Amino acid sequence: MTGVPDSRLVGDLPVTSPADAAAAHVGDDDTLVVSGFGSVGDPKAVPGALADAAEAGRDLSLTVVSGGSTGAPIDTRLFEADAVARRYPFQGRQESRRAINDRDVAFHDTHIARLGDQVELGALADADTAVVEAVAVGEDWLVPSTSIGQTPAYVAAADRLVVEVNHAQPLDLADLHDVYRPGLPPDRDPIPLDSVDGRIGDARLDFDPEKLVAVVETDDADTPYSFREPTDVDERIADHFADFLEAELRRNPAMCETIRLQFGVGSMGNALMGALAAFDDGGRDVEYFGEVVQDGMLDLLADGTFQSASATSLALSEDGQERLFDDIQAYTENLVLRPADVSNRAELVDRFGVVAVNSAVEVDIYGNANSTHVDGRRLLSGIGGSGDFNRNGLLSITALPSTAAGGDVSRIVPAVTHVDHPEHDVSVVITEHGVADLRGLSPVERAETLVADCAHPDYRERLHAYLDHATDERGHIPHDPDAAYDWLD
Amino acid sequence: MTGVPDSRLVGDLPVTSPADAAAAHVGDDDTLVVSGFGSVGDPKAVPGALADAAEAGRDLSLTVVSGGSTGAPIDTRLFEADAVARRYPFQGRQESRRAINDRDVAFHDTHIARLGDQVELGALADADTAVVEAVAVGEDWLVPSTSIGQTPAYVAAADRLVVEVNHAQPLDLADLHDVYRPGLPPDRDPIPLDSVDGRIGDARLDFDPEKLVAVVETDDADTPYSFREPTDVDERIADHFADFLEAELRRNPAMCETIRLQFGVGSMGNALMGALAAFDDGGRDVEYFGEVVQDGMLDLLADGTFQSASATSLALSEDGQERLFDDIQAYTENLVLRPADVSNRAELVDRFGVVAVNSAVEVDIYGNANSTHVDGRRLLSGIGGSGDFNRNGLLSITALPSTAAGGDVSRIVPAVTHVDHPEHDVSVVITEHGVADLRGLSPVERAETLVADCAHPDYRERLHAYLDHATDERGHIPHDPDAAYDWLD
Repeated sequence: MTGVPDSRLVGDLPVTSPADAAAAHVGDDDTLVVSGFGSVGDPKAVPGALADAAEAGRDLSLTVVSGGSTGAPIDTRLFEADAVARRYPFQGRQESRRAINDRDVAFHDTHIARLGDQVELGALADADTAVVEAVAVGEDWLVPSTSIGQTPAYVAAADRLVVEVNHAQPLDLADLHDVYRPGLPPDRDPIPLDSVDGRIGDARLDFDPEKLVAVVETDDADTPYSFREPTDVDERIADHFADFLEAELRRNPAMCETIRLQFGVGSMGNALMGALAAFDDGGRDVEYFGEVVQDGMLDLLADGTFQSASATSLALSEDGQERLFDDIQAYTENLVLRPADVSNRAELVDRFGVVAVNSAVEVDIYGNANSTHVDGRRLLSGIGGSGDFNRNGLLSITALPSTAAGGDVSRIVPAVTHVDHPEHDVSVVITEHGVADLRGLSPVERAETLVADCAHPDYRERLHAYLDHATDERGHIPHDPDAAYDWLD
Repeated sequence: MTGVPDSRLVGDLPVTSPADAAAAHVGDDDTLVVSGFGSVGDPKAVPGALADAAEAGRDLSLTVVSGGSTGAPIDTRLFEADAVARRYPFQGRQESRRAINDRDVAFHDTHIARLGDQVELGALADADTAVVEAVAVGEDWLVPSTSIGQTPAYVAAADRLVVEVNHAQPLDLADLHDVYRPGLPPDRDPIPLDSVDGRIGDARLDFDPEKLVAVVETDDADTPYSFREPTDVDERIADHFADFLEAELRRNPAMCETIRLQFGVGSMGNALMGALAAFDDGGRDVEYFGEVVQDGMLDLLADGTFQSASATSLALSEDGQERLFDDIQAYTENLVLRPADVSNRAELVDRFGVVAVNSAVEVDIYGNANSTHVDGRRLLSGIGGSGDFNRNGLLSITALPSTAAGGDVSRIVPAVTHVDHPEHDVSVVITEHGVADLRGLSPVERAETLVADCAHPDYRERLHAYLDHATDERGHIPHDPDAAYDWLD
């Protein structure tokens, strides 16, 4: 089966209603592995029913493992109901963030690309119950909805499977899906994908029918994204990015035919897409090989700026959902949704020569980037896939505003308070002030270009003063931790 | 051609003698890309002649790019002659280290796996002259000697090629070589290697005959390694490693048939090999997929403890050189030398499920590892391939003694002074005191197991005190930079 199934429920299925009956299949201290990535395609009814049960007195102590960020039923309601003991590896809601930073909930972060393997091999936790949203289900298969994420690995790993068939998600999302399962070592084969929009799998995900304990019907749309308009700073960063890319493609033989880009979700992503619409690619193909499809990508695909896009999630606004859902067939030729352990896989990111563009909380003058923790302490969301693309791509670009807090804080700092991407994995930094190309530079040279070309003018003098002070002593990397962390006190 | 060539010089070659005539092909401010990895297989005569010329007054300002560490002609003599302006990306000799830490020479570090691409794509430097050691050369091919390293990429990237044919290296090293060139994006194919000892290339490396400007004959053996005997601490670490691995292979389905290991060079590597000789693998195949073959590996291959080994360099003692060189044919079935951009490639490290074992200068209580800079300032050697294997392998193990400086310094610290391997890339830490399995743990849990199971007993109380102090404030990662860096003052 590779096309749209005829109906949403096929065969003899354990349809369970209401959802709280399905929730009874979940043990009090289960490890739940759930669908969802980019806060879409996550299960809604069963987590909601579990939260209801916890509020009514059921003593839950769940480990919740998702592929990426999930919506309110998991990261708001289950957290408010005090039902979560552990949460892996990414979250982005106020309630989950607060509980993790209060250390009421144990959080462990890992790279998206490795997550499926880790769960399937029992290296993170033993998966008890998979709770997965689908647009259709049979006795031994399901079709994921608006994200694929780590659903294939999680369903394979779990002892039990609960499927939520969401009638609010179009059935023909199936036509976007390419579910391919990389095997496990030592018998993992090369992934036979040779183009961004190639198809090597199936629309549906097969599972062991013995696992299926409940099917719940729902009718809850994903919460649509609402992106703020790109700011002037976002747009200046995007313009610098487009200028840099135009210069790079003239000199880089790996970009002579095709440019493959990854960038993250958010207003910066929208600004990049705006800049790319006016970008002179010299006739090359421009393709997206990343995690999330945003509204702007639908425009770029429609007007031919981008030839194709591969992702694992549809992070769309209400308007974007409508546009795509009303005309999915218009996109099935050049838009593909894949499992996250394919979309982010080192092998493909390397082979396709992906140019990675990711943001950060702060970057230090030697090129180390912090993308997860404010002040080295407070978790924002998680590393997500940024390391997958920064580490294994052709070129890694960290794009961020030069300041935060209305200009009160420099994001170019003497030493980051948490390192997610070491200096070795950060090639180019872009702020609204310019571009620092760090390739081949020594630490002091990196510091000089980062301060001169990327730091906000208000902070350049103080950053220079730190560098001058630190260079008083010998050493390959001038470094004085006391001064580094005191500098903005 | 896949076997041993009939003679060392084949065809009409620009044989140049003495080496200083060949050195005249090198421009004063050339970027030299050189063979050599693990301090073997590096060119000896031409760098020596360049050092002589510099000492005699020639004003050289070279950029020297190697695949890994090189020997005295480059990293001692050229540095002493003040002939090097820039050095990429790894070195390990006193003179080069001193010049880099004095910031007289600009040093830039990068992951081994990405280095070949970066040079070939002009992203680090434009390669002017390749100077390469070979055991044989023809008009458009050469056979590398005791290391392959990044020689294939460098020869492809350089405008000119100088070959040193070293009569002291056996001609039938050719039978160990499997020179395969990954293509460049966007047309890079999957690497068709499906076993550690598989062969997908050729003994020889082809090049554009127009590039060959000089062939120099030499007769200089590699400087043999002399490893110190493993200490009691090394052996206790190795025993913990073997115990951990035995437990892991009982639970990890990816290890049910085969265990593939990478570990570094040095006395720790020798201790690991000692422990593996007595290791109960339950009948599984044990294979090495790493960078360097050391003496102990010859034993393990000979006695059947290891079924096969793949590397890019032969880091042998005088005794090991003799054993191998006198009987190369005994090893050609299960020992393969590959280019470093194959041996370290993310795709293969992932696909083969490599268990990476690497050392570090220090590890902090949250699992971040520093493997390159003492006090965050002073460069030791470089990151080498540790990040290639830690990042993309099935499991990354950081193995290190719990203290340095005769016990005066704890290597388990509140915060590392330089991050090479972020917490996301460090799964297990082993010291002589035990094993901390960090998978799935929150930061505070990681800190507790690292202090309890890995720190030296003399430092546990102070580390706990830091953790207690830092946990006074909320935050996912308890962190107080001032206290962290002051704690051992």
